[in-house]
Amino acid sequence: MIKTDVQQALQHKIDTKTKPLGALGKLETLAFKIGSIQNTETPTIAKPAIIVFAGDHGIASKGEVNPFPQEVTAQMVYNFVNGGAAINVFSKTNDIELKVVDAGVNHEFGADLNIINAKIALGTKNYQEEPAMTSTQCTDAMRKAGDIVENLHKNGCNTVGFGEMGISNTSSAALLMSYFTKIPIEDCVGSGTGLDSEGISKKGKILSEVYEKHQPKSAEEALATFGGFEIAMLCGAILKAYELNMVIVIDGFIVTSALLAAQAINPKVLESCVFAHSSNEQGHKNMLEFLNADPLLALGLRLGEGTGAALAIPLLRASVDFLNNMASFESAGVSGESEN
Amino acid sequence: MIKTDVQQALQHKIDTKTKPLGALGKLETLAFKIGSIQNTETPTIAKPAIIVFAGDHGIASKGEVNPFPQEVTAQMVYNFVNGGAAINVFSKTNDIELKVVDAGVNHEFGADLNIINAKIALGTKNYQEEPAMTSTQCTDAMRKAGDIVENLHKNGCNTVGFGEMGISNTSSAALLMSYFTKIPIEDCVGSGTGLDSEGISKKGKILSEVYEKHQPKSAEEALATFGGFEIAMLCGAILKAYELNMVIVIDGFIVTSALLAAQAINPKVLESCVFAHSSNEQGHKNMLEFLNADPLLALGLRLGEGTGAALAIPLLRASVDFLNNMASFESAGVSGESEN
Repeated sequence: MIKTDVQQALQHKIDTKTKPLGALGKLETLAFKIGSIQNTETPTIAKPAIIVFAGDHGIASKGEVNPFPQEVTAQMVYNFVNGGAAINVFSKTNDIELKVVDAGVNHEFGADLNIINAKIALGTKNYQEEPAMTSTQCTDAMRKAGDIVENLHKNGCNTVGFGEMGISNTSSAALLMSYFTKIPIEDCVGSGTGLDSEGISKKGKILSEVYEKHQPKSAEEALATFGGFEIAMLCGAILKAYELNMVIVIDGFIVTSALLAAQAINPKVLESCVFAHSSNEQGHKNMLEFLNADPLLALGLRLGEGTGAALAIPLLRASVDFLNNMASFESAGVSGESEN
Repeated sequence: MIKTDVQQALQHKIDTKTKPLGALGKLETLAFKIGSIQNTETPTIAKPAIIVFAGDHGIASKGEVNPFPQEVTAQMVYNFVNGGAAINVFSKTNDIELKVVDAGVNHEFGADLNIINAKIALGTKNYQEEPAMTSTQCTDAMRKAGDIVENLHKNGCNTVGFGEMGISNTSSAALLMSYFTKIPIEDCVGSGTGLDSEGISKKGKILSEVYEKHQPKSAEEALATFGGFEIAMLCGAILKAYELNMVIVIDGFIVTSALLAAQAINPKVLESCVFAHSSNEQGHKNMLEFLNADPLLALGLRLGEGTGAALAIPLLRASVDFLNNMASFESAGVSGESEN
C-alpha cells in the first residue's frame, strides 16, 4: 500500500506514542484506518449513530426457515420504540444515537411513533416463487436509505453503524453470500435465531432450490431477487456513507451480506468499513475472510439489531483518543528503546 | 455447578429477555458472573476503578532482559501523573477512576504528586543473586495493596481492574508462571516490550538459571523470590477485592501472574475474576488456559498498565445493563419460538 502524506504522518504519530512499537495492537490499525477515512491526523468519532432497518420476508409466512413467526418483526419494532431491545440498551450504555427505520414491515405503524417511515411494501414476495422485489423497489429502498444517512451526516454524525430486524433474513443473507462469494449455498446456511441441525438441513434444501431457480445478472438484480427491503436499504446506506467519508461500522451476518452487495457495486466502500465483530452465525466467518476483514470483537453474539456495532463503538473512541491525547516519548521525556 | 437460588433466577432472567436463547454470547456469561459475585439479580458496575502499581526490578539495571532502561519506570509514572499514558486515555474514554501507586520505584517522587505512596524499597534485589524481596517486604506489599483496595471500596467502588508498570516485570511474571503452572520456564518467556528472537532466547537462558537457583516452598515465598513489589501488591489487591465481593478485572501477562499466586493462596478468588483480554505476550494464552479463563477481548495488546482492563469495562456495563433494562418476551408482548 502506498501511503498518502496524511497516512505517513498518522503512522509516525502512532509509532512515537509512549508505548512499545505496535503494543496497542488492533487499536493502532483502527486509529490509522479512521484517520485515513477522515484524511486527518486528528480524527474524531462525532455523534455516532446506529440505524436499524426492519423488513419482512415473503418466505417467513410459511414458517419453514424461521423458528420465530413473522409477527415478531413488527413486535420487535415496537420493542425498539419502547426502548426494551438489546440495541436500545447498548446504544444507551455507549452513548450512541439510535434510529429505527420501517423498510417494509408487514404491519402499519402509527405515524406518532418514533420510527422513520421508509416502507417499500408490506414485506417482500416469496423468492421461492418470484423475485423478492422489483428492481424499482430495490432502487427506491437504496435511495431512501441513502437519504436517511445523509440527514444524519448533516446533523454532525461522522460514524454510523447498521443493524437490522427481519424474521427470515438470515435466509436472504445466505443466498446473497453464496451469490457474491461463490461458496455453495449449503455452506452459507446457519441456525439463524435458533434452528437445530435438522432445521438447518431443511433450510439448506429450501434455499438450494431458491438459488437454482434464479440467475441474477448483476449485484443489483441479486439484491432484488434474494434481498429483504432492509438488506437493500443497508446496501444503499453503506454506499452513501462511503460517499460522505463516514466511518462505517459493520455488524454481523445480515449487514455483512449487504456489504457484499455494496462492495460488488463499489469496491472502494471497504476502505471506510470497520468490522465490529465476528458473529456466531456460521457463515459470518467465511464472509469476513472473503472480505479480508479483521473484526474487533468475538463475543459469540448472534442477535443482529446492530448489537455488535454498538458494542464496538467504545473501541473506536479509544483508538482516536489515544491518537489525539497520548503523550509522545519526546513530549513526556520518556527514554526510548536502547539499540541492542 | 450447583446453582444458588439467585443464580437460578439470574439464568431465568437472562433466558427470557427479547432475544434468541444464548444470542448475547459472552455477555450472558458475564452478566451471570457479575450477578453471582454480587449475589443479586440486579448487579451494577459502580464507580469502576483501575489501580496501576509501579515498581522497579533489580535485574533491570543490567539491561539484559529489557530493551527499555530502568529509568523508564519512573518516567512512565510521571507520564501517568501528567495524564499522557494509554491507561490515562482509556480510563478517561470509559469513565474509570485511575489510581497510581508507587509500590517500589527506584526514584523518590514529590509528595505533592497524585501518587499513592506505598513504596517498599527503591526497587527489588536482583534474583540472579538473591530473592527479590524479604518475606516481610512481601507481606507488607500485600497488606498495603489490600488497604488501597479497601479504601476504594469504602468510597462506593464495586469493580476494580489492575494494571502495572515496571521495566523487566515480564521476567518476574514468566518465573511465577513457570512456578505455578509447571510449564518449563523457556516456554514462559516472551518478547516483553519488544525483544527480538535473539533477545528472547538470551532472556530465556538467564531466567532458566534464575529458576534453577531458587526453590521456593510456598506461593508467598515464590512471590517474594521472583516477584516485583508491584506484583506482590497485585496479589494482595486481588485477595482483598475477593474478600470484599468486588468484580475483579484481570488485565494481561503481569496481572495474571499475580493472580496465579493469589489463586494458589485462595482458589476461590477466581470466582470473582473477569478476564479482560488475551494479550500478545506469548505466555498469556497458556496462563489463561491454565486458569480455564475465557477472555472478553483479543486485540493484540501487549502494553500492560491495565489497558486491557480499561477497554473491557464497557462490556461489563453492557452486560449488567441488558440484564437490568432489556424487556422480557412477556413484558414486551413478543412471541417466542414456535415448537417445531
